Amino acid sequence: MSSRSYGRDPDGVRPTRIDPGFVPSATGSALITQGETRVICTASVEESVPRWMAGRGTGWVTAEYGMLPASTGERKARDVSKGRPDGRTVEIQRLIGRSLRGVIDFQALGERTVWLDCDVLTADGGTRCASITGAFVALDLACRRLIAEGKLAASPLNGSVAAISCGIVEGTPVVDLDYAEDSTAEVDANVVMTGDGGLIEVQATAERTPLSRAHLDDLLALAAVGIEHLRAVQEDAVAAAAS
Amino acid sequence: MSSRSYGRDPDGVRPTRIDPGFVPSATGSALITQGETRVICTASVEESVPRWMAGRGTGWVTAEYGMLPASTGERKARDVSKGRPDGRTVEIQRLIGRSLRGVIDFQALGERTVWLDCDVLTADGGTRCASITGAFVALDLACRRLIAEGKLAASPLNGSVAAISCGIVEGTPVVDLDYAEDSTAEVDANVVMTGDGGLIEVQATAERTPLSRAHLDDLLALAAVGIEHLRAVQEDAVAAAAS
Amino acid sequence: MSSRSYGRDPDGVRPTRIDPGFVPSATGSALITQGETRVICTASVEESVPRWMAGRGTGWVTAEYGMLPASTGERKARDVSKGRPDGRTVEIQRLIGRSLRGVIDFQALGERTVWLDCDVLTADGGTRCASITGAFVALDLACRRLIAEGKLAASPLNGSVAAISCGIVEGTPVVDLDYAEDSTAEVDANVVMTGDGGLIEVQATAERTPLSRAHLDDLLALAAVGIEHLRAVQEDAVAAAAS
Amino acid sequence: MSSRSYGRDPDGVRPTRIDPGFVPSATGSALITQGETRVICTASVEESVPRWMAGRGTGWVTAEYGMLPASTGERKARDVSKGRPDGRTVEIQRLIGRSLRGVIDFQALGERTVWLDCDVLTADGGTRCASITGAFVALDLACRRLIAEGKLAASPLNGSVAAISCGIVEGTPVVDLDYAEDSTAEVDANVVMTGDGGLIEVQATAERTPLSRAHLDDLLALAAVGIEHLRAVQEDAVAAAAS
Amino acid sequence: MSSRSYGRDPDGVRPTRIDPGFVPSATGSALITQGETRVICTASVEESVPRWMAGRGTGWVTAEYGMLPASTGERKARDVSKGRPDGRTVEIQRLIGRSLRGVIDFQALGERTVWLDCDVLTADGGTRCASITGAFVALDLACRRLIAEGKLAASPLNGSVAAISCGIVEGTPVVDLDYAEDSTAEVDANVVMTGDGGLIEVQATAERTPLSRAHLDDLLALAAVGIEHLRAVQEDAVAAAAS
Amino acid sequence: MSSRSYGRDPDGVRPTRIDPGFVPSATGSALITQGETRVICTASVEESVPRWMAGRGTGWVTAEYGMLPASTGERKARDVSKGRPDGRTVEIQRLIGRSLRGVIDFQALGERTVWLDCDVLTADGGTRCASITGAFVALDLACRRLIAEGKLAASPLNGSVAAISCGIVEGTPVVDLDYAEDSTAEVDANVVMTGDGGLIEVQATAERTPLSRAHLDDLLALAAVGIEHLRAVQEDAVAAAAS
Repeated sequence: MSSRSYGRDPDGVRPTRIDPGFVPSATGSALITQGETRVICTASVEESVPRWMAGRGTGWVTAEYGMLPASTGERKARDVSKGRPDGRTVEIQRLIGRSLRGVIDFQALGERTVWLDCDVLTADGGTRCASITGAFVALDLACRRLIAEGKLAASPLNGSVAAISCGIVEGTPVVDLDYAEDSTAEVDANVVMTGDGGLIEVQATAERTPLSRAHLDDLLALAAVGIEHLRAVQEDAVAAAAS
Repeated sequence: MSSRSYGRDPDGVRPTRIDPGFVPSATGSALITQGETRVICTASVEESVPRWMAGRGTGWVTAEYGMLPASTGERKARDVSKGRPDGRTVEIQRLIGRSLRGVIDFQALGERTVWLDCDVLTADGGTRCASITGAFVALDLACRRLIAEGKLAASPLNGSVAAISCGIVEGTPVVDLDYAEDSTAEVDANVVMTGDGGLIEVQATAERTPLSRAHLDDLLALAAVGIEHLRAVQEDAVAAAAS
Repeated sequence: MSSRSYGRDPDGVRPTRIDPGFVPSATGSALITQGETRVICTASVEESVPRWMAGRGTGWVTAEYGMLPASTGERKARDVSKGRPDGRTVEIQRLIGRSLRGVIDFQALGERTVWLDCDVLTADGGTRCASITGAFVALDLACRRLIAEGKLAASPLNGSVAAISCGIVEGTPVVDLDYAEDSTAEVDANVVMTGDGGLIEVQATAERTPLSRAHLDDLLALAAVGIEHLRAVQEDAVAAAAS
Repeated sequence: MSSRSYGRDPDGVRPTRIDPGFVPSATGSALITQGETRVICTASVEESVPRWMAGRGTGWVTAEYGMLPASTGERKARDVSKGRPDGRTVEIQRLIGRSLRGVIDFQALGERTVWLDCDVLTADGGTRCASITGAFVALDLACRRLIAEGKLAASPLNGSVAAISCGIVEGTPVVDLDYAEDSTAEVDANVVMTGDGGLIEVQATAERTPLSRAHLDDLLALAAVGIEHLRAVQEDAVAAAAS
Repeated sequence: MSSRSYGRDPDGVRPTRIDPGFVPSATGSALITQGETRVICTASVEESVPRWMAGRGTGWVTAEYGMLPASTGERKARDVSKGRPDGRTVEIQRLIGRSLRGVIDFQALGERTVWLDCDVLTADGGTRCASITGAFVALDLACRRLIAEGKLAASPLNGSVAAISCGIVEGTPVVDLDYAEDSTAEVDANVVMTGDGGLIEVQATAERTPLSRAHLDDLLALAAVGIEHLRAVQEDAVAAAAS
Repeated sequence: MSSRSYGRDPDGVRPTRIDPGFVPSATGSALITQGETRVICTASVEESVPRWMAGRGTGWVTAEYGMLPASTGERKARDVSKGRPDGRTVEIQRLIGRSLRGVIDFQALGERTVWLDCDVLTADGGTRCASITGAFVALDLACRRLIAEGKLAASPLNGSVAAISCGIVEGTPVVDLDYAEDSTAEVDANVVMTGDGGLIEVQATAERTPLSRAHLDDLLALAAVGIEHLRAVQEDAVAAAAS
């Protein structure tokens, strides 16, 4: 296999940092930087829920995802210029929403909606996973703010969640693919896990050659290690915000 | 666990039949009936490719998915009435397209596009998987027609593909969930495999409680058995069409 | 005149059958097959009316029409891909709605909406007329279901309705044109009549040469005979469903 | 029957005038005033045809229809505010286009498109028919301008066309309904005829009670007389423009 | 500088007339003709306000602007054909709305909305300014009608408003540019003023070379003179309508 | 007047900094921070021009503007969720485009397009002006990059441009209004000037009471001083990027 960016081994995650409070106007926010990929994540709280679930006393979490036009090498037209989000955007924001809903107790949240917005500043692979990892920090900070403001008695979060990509590149299972690796990978997977190792979502796609069960096991093992690392970065970010 | 429809065991697939040639105006077509779920699958061949890939001599396969308004108990508004496909539709048609592209040699297909249209006649769970299983038959028949018409020398298919849902219902791993099971499942997964057992796509989502690695292994094993069964139904349908 | 499909005389209707209950998830449904033209017709009942007519105790009937992409020889793009129904679709679904509203007593229907969905499986001319003829059966069956469920005391239908195309082809007035005839016709007409011979809608369009009054009379006479035939097919279908 | 506006008999057309050249920036134009209904009709010539018919040396005529928001008593929202023309608009502009295409020789027109725009200034019933009658004058004037500019050798028109509404109001067949009559009519029809009495389009719709053949004949006879009157008004307008 | 249309000096406004009551179905209306530019202006009153301001007892004024397709030399596609108003339209209708809101007392208007619709019949430069000048007359007439109908005790207008374009053409400051001047102007400005000389809106744009403060002062002086002239035309129109 | 943020006098600009190169994937970029308002500005170069100006050898500059949903206190829905940019967005991006086109020589730029994207990270008033000021730095850096890459021989910029808001707040003319001031201002203006003092665009809107000529002069004088200050910040940013 060709050498990996940042001199990484197959199980190496790119240097990752999470800056909490990056967007002060949001209830919670974080800028996640994972290698050359950077995503602005915000959590905005609205004191109501979609009409179809009003009156039940339970809350909702939903996500939107976008890419700044200059985030990729070649300018990417805004979704609005075509009048609707493209298919990839729809797929990604549904994944982010499901992932974060996996660790929140809607009863405890009460009848309010948290909007998670993930806007990609620069894209070098793994933006959907970085969005999930960063959005969790934004969501956690928003919950803490609601507690501090007396709107919630305790955190509605029943765990943490993070995500990482993995794949088979030139026959080798690797974790946290950058754009160059992603575009040549035979298999591309995204794994979302809770902080205590439960799977929230697994998506594996064989782009060229079918994937064997053995390789899938390798990928899941790599992902588990990577997510453990990201969990620590999330904890540091939340701790930094609190101090 | 409550008793399953058709008196099935956890590893039981609903009675499945595939009627080839259901839409004579299509190049290839099939009606797949899996329990109460029925999907019309057609393959239409267009002698050109999308502009961004023209001139390379290679082909393309793309899919669209729709539900007839009366396919579910309560009438479902047509996507066009909202001006765009909803998020679920987008996600499903992208999955169908990726799955079928996984078994076709674009070089051998030549510079033409195959459109796979999957329209749900009645929905009782598992429509996206039934669409993939049925669309493969439509695609296979379309390739055979192109060969018969002298447009292709040999089939561009390098294998077969089928899909099945599986999940954890009331704590038990089961395969081929109907709607009632799907709406109460703790974990919901869709597995796409080739006829010789390679994984094309795995999507597992924990709706309520995170999924353990052990349970994921159970689901993948159940899916493999189910897909082997569907592969036989596909082969019978193609054979029936040929005779 | 060239010979007609199915060896028909100018006043011959193509072999027609109506399969009731084709879509079990709908309140009422029918598959109408008229020569090579096949349309899936469903009636879905919603226990409310559009906002502008709420509170008056009267009901509403509305129709939507679509063509499966593979229903014509060359694939027809879905309306949703352009964000709106095309002009022909709009014109047709308005015609279907008006025709069926012509035989229903909205007071007797009560404050509910019946959605009639007509989806063309294969198109070989006359799809709008077949949609009306088939939709009547779906509507009738839906009313019978509402009576059986105790939601209605008596049928709100005050008659039956069917439709047939007619036109001038190579100078000769003919009924029930197939696609080949339709595309060369000098005059193209659609006639909607009640079971007892009243006109609900007449649409005649001269495509190439103006139409004389004498020829219009010929067309209306042909249509009356054709519709009488279709009325019998409708009655058989409803009877078959009831038995 | 109640007394009719302008003290008309059942066969009376409202006072009608056509002002040619009302929009000097158009190639041809006319303002038609029929009672309180006023429609601005323009013909704009584009020296090309839609892509699907390019290179054949033949022309095309197409129509668009709109209502100024204040044209009706209560303000009507612009179609653009909903992102698409409503169903009625689509139906009407297709009718106008078909009607005018009925009297033009596309070969003689040459490879150019004539756009007919009909914008309703005030609406008091019969706007679609007035649009056709006025659009013919705009089209005729545009053809004369093309001849004057040396772009055409002779007129591509092979006749004239006009339209009028008729219907059954309180049991009596009448012609040229105003809005009050139209909203209570049992049957509503629109008849498009050439100057020499050929039928181009007949549309009759029974709103409440089916229409008998005898009544349809009455309506067609009334329409023929009304259109003969409108034909004279058209001729005067064209003559006035020429002088 | 080249000679100006109508033999005007740099400070000359084109011959302007305002025909009140041009659209009888509107609450207030006017046709403004300024040289070859003609705009139909209507004021429609709706007895409610947008939801976000309901219940405060105050009113609202909003504007929409459109161009008839034939209003310019080459046919301009309708906004609806692209599904949304183009950028220029949006900018203009926002300007018209702001300008008219500048002279109305929303408290005195009461909880109702006035829609101002400005539809360009022929365009020869200055359509946005003519729209404002004409819309004021339509609004004034609508207010007078509301008073006459007893819906308002006194006029909610606290002044009058008119607008005129000015610019630098071939180095010379001029007022009321026609299309030919507008398309070669180095600087293009629109000035909206009240009848007693207050500025409501100033928009100056340097198209080619930056504008000096001295030249801006020249433009504002020219505009003041032009608007005084338009104010007299407005007064005559309102007086004519009243008599 | 109430005390101003940052203890400013009426002619005081908020603390402003421009971070060049904030988005490394863009050809040129800058993050401008003006008080609590922050805007990400990028310049992306495309080696082609819109079709209507192709083949002339001249270039084009266009701008798009967006607000991140969390940039304001209450979450602002993405434009794409409504299918089109709202009126304010359209107005602003047209202003940004015109302003930057005012200082570039399209002949010297050659047949390429520069896309300027301004995305608001946090909004506290003056976002359109900050966008212009920041976009100029992004554009300047992009031109320098094109020169460094040998694509341009010399800079196509013929000056610099910056913008600032001003207005009348509680009767006093002030510069650089924050959100609180902006929402209570009687008059709101935006002034765009070149580095050597030429006016590119002036937009003044009286929200409540008309503006006198004397006050307009005050505002233009304040703006000139503010822009001189911003010009220095721009120069420092470009110098920092170059070193």
